[in-house]
Amino acid sequence: VKGDFPLENLPFGIFSRDGDRRSVGVAYGDDVIDMAKVADARLLDDVVKNAVEVFNAPTLNAFLETGHGAWRETRVRLQTILEDRTTSKEFLVPRALTRMHMPVEIRDYVDFYSSIEHATNVGKLFRPGGEPLLPNYRHIPIGYHGRTSTISIREKVRRPSGQTKAADAPTPVFGPSRQLDFELELGFIVGLSNGEGRPIPTEDAADYLFGVVLLSDWSARDVQSWEGQPLGPFLSKSFATTISPWVVTLDALLPYRVENRAQDPEPLDYLRVDAPWAFDIDLSVSLQSRAMQTAREKPKEIVRVNFRNMYWNAAQQLAHLTSNGSIVRAGDLLGSGTISGTNEGSYGSLLEATLRGARPLVLTSSETRTFLEDGDTVVMHGVAAHPGLPRIGLGELRATIAPPEW
Amino acid sequence: VKGDFPLENLPFGIFSRDGDRRSVGVAYGDDVIDMAKVADARLLDDVVKNAVEVFNAPTLNAFLETGHGAWRETRVRLQTILEDRTTSKEFLVPRALTRMHMPVEIRDYVDFYSSIEHATNVGKLFRPGGEPLLPNYRHIPIGYHGRTSTISIREKVRRPSGQTKAADAPTPVFGPSRQLDFELELGFIVGLSNGEGRPIPTEDAADYLFGVVLLSDWSARDVQSWEGQPLGPFLSKSFATTISPWVVTLDALLPYRVENRAQDPEPLDYLRVDAPWAFDIDLSVSLQSRAMQTAREKPKEIVRVNFRNMYWNAAQQLAHLTSNGSIVRAGDLLGSGTISGTNEGSYGSLLEATLRGARPLVLTSSETRTFLEDGDTVVMHGVAAHPGLPRIGLGELRATIAPPEW
Repeated sequence: VKGDFPLENLPFGIFSRDGDRRSVGVAYGDDVIDMAKVADARLLDDVVKNAVEVFNAPTLNAFLETGHGAWRETRVRLQTILEDRTTSKEFLVPRALTRMHMPVEIRDYVDFYSSIEHATNVGKLFRPGGEPLLPNYRHIPIGYHGRTSTISIREKVRRPSGQTKAADAPTPVFGPSRQLDFELELGFIVGLSNGEGRPIPTEDAADYLFGVVLLSDWSARDVQSWEGQPLGPFLSKSFATTISPWVVTLDALLPYRVENRAQDPEPLDYLRVDAPWAFDIDLSVSLQSRAMQTAREKPKEIVRVNFRNMYWNAAQQLAHLTSNGSIVRAGDLLGSGTISGTNEGSYGSLLEATLRGARPLVLTSSETRTFLEDGDTVVMHGVAAHPGLPRIGLGELRATIAPPEW
Repeated sequence: VKGDFPLENLPFGIFSRDGDRRSVGVAYGDDVIDMAKVADARLLDDVVKNAVEVFNAPTLNAFLETGHGAWRETRVRLQTILEDRTTSKEFLVPRALTRMHMPVEIRDYVDFYSSIEHATNVGKLFRPGGEPLLPNYRHIPIGYHGRTSTISIREKVRRPSGQTKAADAPTPVFGPSRQLDFELELGFIVGLSNGEGRPIPTEDAADYLFGVVLLSDWSARDVQSWEGQPLGPFLSKSFATTISPWVVTLDALLPYRVENRAQDPEPLDYLRVDAPWAFDIDLSVSLQSRAMQTAREKPKEIVRVNFRNMYWNAAQQLAHLTSNGSIVRAGDLLGSGTISGTNEGSYGSLLEATLRGARPLVLTSSETRTFLEDGDTVVMHGVAAHPGLPRIGLGELRATIAPPEW
């Protein structure tokens, strides 16, 4: 099996066939395993309680709540079933015949800020003259709560309107954002709740984190710089967050874990982590303008960066998030924050790549870009691949910018 | 009928009797109207679609989704029913026999910052030497998203732990907050969704906003000042937000609307509002230490302030929130932000009342308070009363500070 979804991956999602109801699917090669059928055939009764109900559901939330043992054993069981081509055939639907839906009902959404390179780049742009990295950055996995109602797998992102104020203007104006941007991120989906809010130590994180999606934190930079103080980003982000439809399990990504990035200073005890929580995932963003699409030019890669270099990892974020007694629930989403490196071509947002518009990108069509134009399509990919191991992909996040609707 | 809940009020909530399932109730005097019984008697079929199902539900969300016409007609119908003492008697349960539950499943929670006095007071304390009010304040109803998993009607608030750093310390420490505070707010509950995100003009706000609760945005000030930049408050707030259990409808509060506060400069077009959206609601916070409780001393009033003076109103907040195409849903909660005045005794948080601990409050027990101590009970009330009109109350928000549990 070629592509992102070999036997060693088996990511979970929600799909339907024409006019049919939504239920759980697992991607395998160019097919979807119809998990409702597998459950209806009573092949999952011994690994998941109420399997028929859990896999006939319109979201993954019930499956998430079954816990790490059930997640793991379901994948192992599927691998066994798929080895028998005759039996497995009746459960497979060609992916081309399916339609994907939002995989999870999102409960709380926190967007972190865990690339120290991104934080430094942004600090330089938003606070010129100041120290780019604030004093708390190396002590706290900085994050903030985001809006859940606008998280989707939609492939259309409407340009938002908002208040902006030019530096030399006396007063703000309201209108379509002129600095629309993407942010390349990964999203970690929480599977298990900590009930009444018992803090989750870093060593238990694998029991609570189900899997990973690609995530774009769409951002209106002109709105963000005017509204962002003192309480942080709000409408500059809340209009849209999109994720990829297949949730790749942490179990599938285990072989691609690498040593954690060194942290200086050592974090406080509750944030120390011994197990490796860095993942060697090669990420890319490509951009295709409307003109390129018309000319059948493929999207141009404008970002390539590896997830392994993030300063803070998901185990630390989950420990931090719950250190004050906060409740996490199945369906919580933890965004990594923009993933950026230090070199040209490794910046996970146009804000950084173009120095806030000062250094436009040149596309293969010879068009230039400072921020996104209507009709631009953004495509994100993520792949884990080590010598001697299969290639595991996150699938694709794709979205086209639409003009303001209202 | 005396107290907060006369015939002209009729707030909605979720209640149960011993061991019984949860369903919709309406407070009337010292009783609860069992709405499931009223619906089962088919007395609401012509005002609410699927009334039996809607009022037998464990949250108000289904009722919220029925829309403004149904909310209004349900109250009018109840007023008619209650006029007939014989009929109505069978629907009433003494409140003393009931237990209240969370009225609404909260979807997204936004906490605004709409008291200009509060923003000014906090600006002075958190940014000494700087301009207390940031340049965007008079143009934007500033707000941020908060955590929904920890919103409750619980009467116990655990002291959170967190990272703090003393100004003169080289590094942060982790431990129980020593600056635990309340924030006196009102919360507006969204009833109707705007579907795919069509902006809600200020003149339509009454169709979308169902009602009001008391809200305390519990805050760990020492955590807040260390974590809060650059992305805003996070763990300093996410450990607990509590609300009062009865949702007072906007319809009930209509007679207490007063002229909007003058805004200078005039807000941008999308934020202009002609109808009055200021409410004359007299609010108070009282504090009772454990020693006072033991000595049977009643809580001492430490805050009294009126809601009418808020700079930004809920219609403007809803218009702002949706101006970028954001989706609102039944069960969204909009916090007003701390309600403060300019005089001693009118500050809606201890941060302001004690100048961040510099000027302790003296309780009737002769104890002093800078921030909350374990065993302290905070009680909030809100009442609307005009000459010639009945007194309409919001009920009570009450919570006692418990020591750190973990």
